[in-house]
Amino acid sequence: MSLKGLGDVVLDHVAIAVKDLDNAVQVWENLGLEFEEEREVVEEQGVVTAFAAIDTNAHLELLCPHGEGGPIHKYIEKKGEGIHHLCFKVKDVAAKTIELRDKGFTLINEAPVKGAGGCLVNFIHPKSTGGVLVEISQKVDS
Amino acid sequence: MSLKGLGDVVLDHVAIAVKDLDNAVQVWENLGLEFEEEREVVEEQGVVTAFAAIDTNAHLELLCPHGEGGPIHKYIEKKGEGIHHLCFKVKDVAAKTIELRDKGFTLINEAPVKGAGGCLVNFIHPKSTGGVLVEISQKVDS
Repeated sequence: MSLKGLGDVVLDHVAIAVKDLDNAVQVWENLGLEFEEEREVVEEQGVVTAFAAIDTNAHLELLCPHGEGGPIHKYIEKKGEGIHHLCFKVKDVAAKTIELRDKGFTLINEAPVKGAGGCLVNFIHPKSTGGVLVEISQKVDS
Repeated sequence: MSLKGLGDVVLDHVAIAVKDLDNAVQVWENLGLEFEEEREVVEEQGVVTAFAAIDTNAHLELLCPHGEGGPIHKYIEKKGEGIHHLCFKVKDVAAKTIELRDKGFTLINEAPVKGAGGCLVNFIHPKSTGGVLVEISQKVDS
């Protein structure tokens, strides 16, 4: 796969906060997407997720609250359903965290934390990006 | 390029409404994206745009008001900067418009209209998709 023309970050997923996962999967499949069968519960985040490929690398991720009090539950309570964040793949999320902080971005975590699917992740605060919550993610071999 | 695993729609771009195009380009380039030099003014929409590749097919599109009263100007006034819509490529936007309407989606335009870059486009109302404005777009040879 060629990444010609791409910078050093590549879209990993667009995440959408939804109230009802099965209903949302149905909506996006009606639109023409094809979802993977697997649903992943991420207990630490209080979410259950579903993924559909939308490009060579990228997926649409539906994020549905799992239990109460998690960040997506709070987000939907406050702002309703909708696009929640963009995630970009990076080679070294620890190095990228330092690089971005040096450039003046506000990172949510001091150092990368464990995310879904065995990734190391960090988040850039929307105030640094013009209103967009941005996740940076590094695939780590298990 | 393989589209294995993709449905019949492929991400074309993620659009972000911004107040200051040069400033926004700088922010996202600091993050690691590389923007094309070209800026396109779309007079009908009252916007000026900048694109950066984020995957094999997909781009990040920065949408900045050009003049007052256009939809992006109104959007930023009301909701502030942030992710505005997702756009998916389709083979036949007229057929997809009919298919989606038959499935119960609310389409913004009765039939596809001319978009930027010589595309034929239509939009799906966010109330049909769980809060996400979705553009469908067909590349038309000029």
